[in-house]
Amino acid sequence: MTQIGNSGLRIRLAQLNYKIGDFEGNTAKMAQSLFEAKADGIDLVVFSELATSGYCPDDLLDYAHFAERCEQALDAVAQCCFGIAAIVGSVQINPEPHGRRLINSAAFLAQGRIQESVSKTLLPSYDVFSEHRYFEPAQDTKIVEYKGVKLGLAICEDLWDIYNDFQYRISPGQRLKDLGAEIIINPSASPFQLGKQSLRNRVFAGQLNRFGLPVLYVNQVGFHTELLFDGASRAVGHGGQVLVQLPFFEEASADVQLNFGLLTTESQLGLPLEMDDIPLLHRALVFALQDYFRKMGFQKATLGASGGIDSAVVQCLAVEALGAENVTVLLMPSEFSSDHSVSDAVALSENLGNEYKKLDIAPIYNTLLQQLEPVFGDSPFGLAEENLQARTRGLLLMATSNKTGAILLNTSNKSELAVGYSTLYGDLCGSLSLLGDVYKQQVYALAHYINRENEIIPEHIITKAPSAELRPGQKDSDSLPDYSILDEIIRKYVEDQQGAQEIIADGYDPNMVNKVLQLINGAEYKRYQAPPIVRVSKKSFGKGRRMPLVAQY
Amino acid sequence: MTQIGNSGLRIRLAQLNYKIGDFEGNTAKMAQSLFEAKADGIDLVVFSELATSGYCPDDLLDYAHFAERCEQALDAVAQCCFGIAAIVGSVQINPEPHGRRLINSAAFLAQGRIQESVSKTLLPSYDVFSEHRYFEPAQDTKIVEYKGVKLGLAICEDLWDIYNDFQYRISPGQRLKDLGAEIIINPSASPFQLGKQSLRNRVFAGQLNRFGLPVLYVNQVGFHTELLFDGASRAVGHGGQVLVQLPFFEEASADVQLNFGLLTTESQLGLPLEMDDIPLLHRALVFALQDYFRKMGFQKATLGASGGIDSAVVQCLAVEALGAENVTVLLMPSEFSSDHSVSDAVALSENLGNEYKKLDIAPIYNTLLQQLEPVFGDSPFGLAEENLQARTRGLLLMATSNKTGAILLNTSNKSELAVGYSTLYGDLCGSLSLLGDVYKQQVYALAHYINRENEIIPEHIITKAPSAELRPGQKDSDSLPDYSILDEIIRKYVEDQQGAQEIIADGYDPNMVNKVLQLINGAEYKRYQAPPIVRVSKKSFGKGRRMPLVAQY
Repeated sequence: MTQIGNSGLRIRLAQLNYKIGDFEGNTAKMAQSLFEAKADGIDLVVFSELATSGYCPDDLLDYAHFAERCEQALDAVAQCCFGIAAIVGSVQINPEPHGRRLINSAAFLAQGRIQESVSKTLLPSYDVFSEHRYFEPAQDTKIVEYKGVKLGLAICEDLWDIYNDFQYRISPGQRLKDLGAEIIINPSASPFQLGKQSLRNRVFAGQLNRFGLPVLYVNQVGFHTELLFDGASRAVGHGGQVLVQLPFFEEASADVQLNFGLLTTESQLGLPLEMDDIPLLHRALVFALQDYFRKMGFQKATLGASGGIDSAVVQCLAVEALGAENVTVLLMPSEFSSDHSVSDAVALSENLGNEYKKLDIAPIYNTLLQQLEPVFGDSPFGLAEENLQARTRGLLLMATSNKTGAILLNTSNKSELAVGYSTLYGDLCGSLSLLGDVYKQQVYALAHYINRENEIIPEHIITKAPSAELRPGQKDSDSLPDYSILDEIIRKYVEDQQGAQEIIADGYDPNMVNKVLQLINGAEYKRYQAPPIVRVSKKSFGKGRRMPLVAQY
Repeated sequence: MTQIGNSGLRIRLAQLNYKIGDFEGNTAKMAQSLFEAKADGIDLVVFSELATSGYCPDDLLDYAHFAERCEQALDAVAQCCFGIAAIVGSVQINPEPHGRRLINSAAFLAQGRIQESVSKTLLPSYDVFSEHRYFEPAQDTKIVEYKGVKLGLAICEDLWDIYNDFQYRISPGQRLKDLGAEIIINPSASPFQLGKQSLRNRVFAGQLNRFGLPVLYVNQVGFHTELLFDGASRAVGHGGQVLVQLPFFEEASADVQLNFGLLTTESQLGLPLEMDDIPLLHRALVFALQDYFRKMGFQKATLGASGGIDSAVVQCLAVEALGAENVTVLLMPSEFSSDHSVSDAVALSENLGNEYKKLDIAPIYNTLLQQLEPVFGDSPFGLAEENLQARTRGLLLMATSNKTGAILLNTSNKSELAVGYSTLYGDLCGSLSLLGDVYKQQVYALAHYINRENEIIPEHIITKAPSAELRPGQKDSDSLPDYSILDEIIRKYVEDQQGAQEIIADGYDPNMVNKVLQLINGAEYKRYQAPPIVRVSKKSFGKGRRMPLVAQY
């Protein structure tokens, strides 16, 4: 290959949205990107981790034909690499006779074929990650030389060796430095979570300090079941400064030049590097819902509009993501619903311009009670009767979904899910939970953010005391501490994995802490059957948190 | 320590039932076992893998206090080791500064303290196992010397190095042989699955051949969420012959003597080494249900008795496991139910002697249709109406559960779960799925086995054509191939992970294969919210099979 010109090695960071298993779509995107880059005089395009398959295909990887299709897709992208080179993350078949059958690789493609393959050394196997389940880790790494420049390829976690709860034995970055790398290229599948940007700032600045090498971090965007990828790919120069950053939650690209070890760019920096939590969270949830519907081929959504704040926020997110014409909500008041429940819910739908229908659950509830007489006898009103109402609503929503094809959006928030303040097969129904990783206090903040310019959510929905309205005069605060306290206890227990003693030592009332932890542990069985949740924190309920049901807590 | 006497080293295999997180209970069991063993003149008691905590605590391991309690429990067991020694599987804190914070260890306890700790080298991270999520693998192993005998400790997977879909790089057994081990002791947490015994036979005979060392395999019994442990611990002598085997699904122990490298026993062999599939499956499911209820503190169960074979078999299993006095079933016929549905279901309950109640769903269904008029309009009868009935039944069963405290048992089988022939929040409700890993054909075989002496399940339930009875004249065979074919296609796709081409190459009709695979892929979203399933095959739906929902199949 020829040496680089005076202008240095021209590299494009390509931040794309891949779909798991859509080999043709993913390949076509990369081909298009390479075609444009070549026209723009680019030498090398960097795509992200597992770009051929999407991240992460989970147990689809157990099927032999899936890995073969990854290899074929990689070959197809290589065919586009004449007069240009690419770094593509892919599943490849482990060439060694021992160990797992696959590797998580970054392939260097040039002259129409795979020139080199570097496999991932550090395989994250915590929280939402299970890479040891599928991949054999690299025993060592190597340098890829292109146009006289020594490229060091470190896939995602390979650059996070000391930025974890634990420290890995090996530092792939240090090894690449020792091997003479002039730059570290970091194809990634780094999931979004609130606070992740400042963590990334620490990691990239820290690695700059350690190795003295510029870093190209190429993340992807997209929503995949629970995982949300936010992009924000970036080039970090020698001094640790961010030269350019790609936007959050959008496909985009930027170009940099590497000239005698110096990384420069003519691209815009792409400020802001960080965003405030609530606007970012709002953007994340709208994007997740859009991408979910797009990838699943869904168009219409439905949800139960209770007149409460959770459903109001979900409804606003749905209308923003899908358009008011694609959202129909059901109002299903009962005898225990407050006067304002219906009028508030109607006002919201009228503000948003989506369709709404009112279904009366009293006749159903009464018929259920009549038919259940052989079981209920003359027992007093209790949990069973409360759940009957919630499950009747779930049933009506699912009937609406089945009849109209609208996808049911779940409206539970993380605080409720945590303490089990929800009815299995009732308000826990749904195809996707948008707020399942959003604390009640964040739901309020989202409501205020949605109302930042106009009152979209009627003020009364925000100010009234939260209630499930399943018995007369019920308030959340009857059985739960204030959300300001509850949310913090949940966060400490679930996200920070503190035990009761540590939380109490932080100044919380011991009785309250023990009660809340007991509620959380006692609700594992409900969460086992809950819908998939859009993960936006460092520890979401779902596949990133695996708790035994049969256990003594 | 003193040398062994003329009779050799007397070792007891202790096969116990541990509960996850019940440190006091687990410790007390081991203490009791050591107390008895000492009285019997035993030198060494071998307990199984993660005996202090139960296997596997999952993300409870992320809590610092949980690992500390494992260490404390281990110390407590060590306190019982005066004049006797023990090998105890436990979580321990990784003494090294790098890597995961925990190790999966086998501790050698003697003279009141932990003398040695050997950690697990091969960490299974496939199917239901996620040990890389929690543990740092051993970099090397070592010999434990006791009374002049060199003991080689290999924890569970450490003896399965070449008996996997892939081969590990390292052989802990070979390493122990090279270090001079006279016996291999294999504390295990080896889950039950049909066919596992012949696999174990291959592994132990194969390892005997390789290393020429006797093996003590100490498994546990118990049900933990999805995982079922069957015991069947065994001592395998030099020639590869099984000297003794402990029973399936029972706490038990046996003694062996090791004398100048020769393993002998006076215990009974404990035949049969294997059992036929269906009696073993029946035993497994009854035990799982019993252990689930015992560990969860449940007493009473309920289920919907449709007059079909699945609910009939679940009802028989429940009555056998819990007693007829603890089982109440609901009969919930609709206008589409056949004449025999109720009479068959009544006959079964009368044969079994459990309580049954008949609830009419027609009034509820009709009220639902009336109230849904704003949504349904005059649309024709379809899936929505079918699901309304199934969900009404789910709602009545959950109301019964809430009101009476009886735990709802799910009645779906693996064939239905596979192809999505089930209604989410309807017949998919339940606290535990007993048949979720049992194919329809196995359900029939179980029914025949239950009837082996008397007709407990009315013949007509077994012989009539399967039907969900959700629309007039409906039969399973209207929309599904014969179960003899369907079950095989599902097994090849789900358990053997064959793709469409491989299955078609086996002689199945291409259209049928493609249709079935499409149904299986299309039902992932239902299984995501399905109840926990008792795992009895090598690949069960549940945490051992993780499929993306947002993907192109």
